[in-house]
Amino acid sequence: MTQTDSSSTAVIALDAMGGDHGMESTTRAAAAISKTTKIHLLMVGNRDELLPLLEKHEAHLDQIEFIHTTDFVPMSESALASARRTGSSIALAAQSVASGRAQALVTAGNTAAVLLHCSRVISQIPGINRTALAAVHPTLPREHNADPLGLLLDVGANLSCDAEDLVQFAAMGAAYASRISKIDSPTVGLLNIGEEETKGDALLRQAHQLLREASGPAFTFYGNVEGRDIPLGVVDVVVCPGILGNVVLKLLESMGEVVLALGNDMLSQRPTWRLGRRMLRGGLHQISDMAHYSEYGGAPILGLDRIVIKAHGRSDAKAIENAIKVAAKAVREDVCGGIVESIRKAQENRYQSLSLGTDR
Amino acid sequence: MTQTDSSSTAVIALDAMGGDHGMESTTRAAAAISKTTKIHLLMVGNRDELLPLLEKHEAHLDQIEFIHTTDFVPMSESALASARRTGSSIALAAQSVASGRAQALVTAGNTAAVLLHCSRVISQIPGINRTALAAVHPTLPREHNADPLGLLLDVGANLSCDAEDLVQFAAMGAAYASRISKIDSPTVGLLNIGEEETKGDALLRQAHQLLREASGPAFTFYGNVEGRDIPLGVVDVVVCPGILGNVVLKLLESMGEVVLALGNDMLSQRPTWRLGRRMLRGGLHQISDMAHYSEYGGAPILGLDRIVIKAHGRSDAKAIENAIKVAAKAVREDVCGGIVESIRKAQENRYQSLSLGTDR
Repeated sequence: MTQTDSSSTAVIALDAMGGDHGMESTTRAAAAISKTTKIHLLMVGNRDELLPLLEKHEAHLDQIEFIHTTDFVPMSESALASARRTGSSIALAAQSVASGRAQALVTAGNTAAVLLHCSRVISQIPGINRTALAAVHPTLPREHNADPLGLLLDVGANLSCDAEDLVQFAAMGAAYASRISKIDSPTVGLLNIGEEETKGDALLRQAHQLLREASGPAFTFYGNVEGRDIPLGVVDVVVCPGILGNVVLKLLESMGEVVLALGNDMLSQRPTWRLGRRMLRGGLHQISDMAHYSEYGGAPILGLDRIVIKAHGRSDAKAIENAIKVAAKAVREDVCGGIVESIRKAQENRYQSLSLGTDR
Repeated sequence: MTQTDSSSTAVIALDAMGGDHGMESTTRAAAAISKTTKIHLLMVGNRDELLPLLEKHEAHLDQIEFIHTTDFVPMSESALASARRTGSSIALAAQSVASGRAQALVTAGNTAAVLLHCSRVISQIPGINRTALAAVHPTLPREHNADPLGLLLDVGANLSCDAEDLVQFAAMGAAYASRISKIDSPTVGLLNIGEEETKGDALLRQAHQLLREASGPAFTFYGNVEGRDIPLGVVDVVVCPGILGNVVLKLLESMGEVVLALGNDMLSQRPTWRLGRRMLRGGLHQISDMAHYSEYGGAPILGLDRIVIKAHGRSDAKAIENAIKVAAKAVREDVCGGIVESIRKAQENRYQSLSLGTDR
């Protein structure tokens, strides 16, 4: 209640029916937000069920409005089938943002349906060819980055893309990192099979060249990065085609869990290890969970002229709360304006390096 | 010395100059092999330097022959530059296998150069469109698989492939898993962005269809798998295009190391955790190393009509020793013959399911 910054005036639309945990998580998150910030929420969902839950969680109802609907997109429904649900919570939430009634959208719903309904009613930023889904993931601590998080995009908004699209992903990701994580001139890496510029297929080789030309005030192109460089945090932003990014993201998310499951046998080989393992139980559990994204506030959809934060399907209340805070910050820091600027700078830099012949 | 199986007669060509540790690792491995098995080795490299090292390690020299050369391909050299080195250790080792002087080749050398020199002189199995590099990785224990290892291919022998190639990768990987890991009717998964058959781009959707038609005696097609299913060992063999496989492999290799590095801070939060961590030190170190492949005997190159095992560049003597044993086993179990049979069965099954209209 002591915050008086501009985020206090933001209205965030919340798809109250989305996510594996549905209204239980969204109402808990909404209650927490209403009690600890001045953010206003526009909850889209079944008002008759939401209200009692909000009251139970002692929400400050003066900060919460509703758009009532009983329809929602089931988590496993195909995008095609979901397209018909124009009265669903995600469809109405997207419309509320498109019309300006809310400044940003937070949803833990079905990703394909979110992308479809948002793309249908929210305009793309002029000059952007494709919107991209960007995942925030934990990395090893890095000097210039206080909260050690990295951005990976595209993680599945697109099945295909060209080299120009990858440059736009770089500019958009850098704008997000610079405004949300406060990194000056973020570094960008191109996910590839080796460091050398000659590595990869025609798409990746051309993207390497274009990224080098665009490297400048918008972002610093680091060069190619490999799989292991992503969690190590070698760069702030990693760009790649959507299928590659999606497979990598799902592997990253499971790393803690998988490594500990694999290591469990090993750690029972000696009595001291068995004892040590027992002492560490809670800590190992945290490691296993660490890549589960609940702390990282969700994945931004970049390229639309409104802020959309896609929280993980299995988000709990804490994760949704964090996603709402990130959305409010993205509004306050004008991430969409930052993207316009970043795309312009990258473009200018390319023309300049081409005309100067300094593209090496 | 008690082994009297047919592997005792195998001659394995060993690129004695390849790998980050060069002759130090290869001579140690050769000495161990000569002392504990009846495998004959054909060491290709600088005889004047190899001999004193082998003597130092007390190798049984009656099991070791040499092809002398002083040239080798540096680990960082491009494939193109390496093409000129027709007298290098890898080039001569490949020739010795092509000519039949040795039955299999083991090398820890520069992957691109290995693929190039092998493809140049060793014939492809008739009917195979593309050779593939297959990585062996640890998985969670699975009921039917005593040693919990999985196979992932292609991990970078090809920059592009079509749906037919992915079916051949499946048949080749299944043949290898069935003969080396003794798995009856191995399961195959297609790496994709979701389980549903409609997921992915045109290539992946077509591959899904063709794999379903080919599923039968050669292998059982499980369906699509996602990133996390690979280390969990949901299937025995995962197939994917080379760029995707390469990025995933490098991430898998670093998982233990990265998770523990990320978790290190977490585990220092409480005194009991700090103590537990100290007690577990050796065990955690083992976890960090577990995906470093030293125990898994290297990556087979599948599709050539000779056995070629590519050990990891950073292989130590133990890893090279294991790779030599795997190569001898692959000769003994006639993996190349198994691939011919598996490809034929998969093909027959496709025709059959097409003519019966039972493409499920």
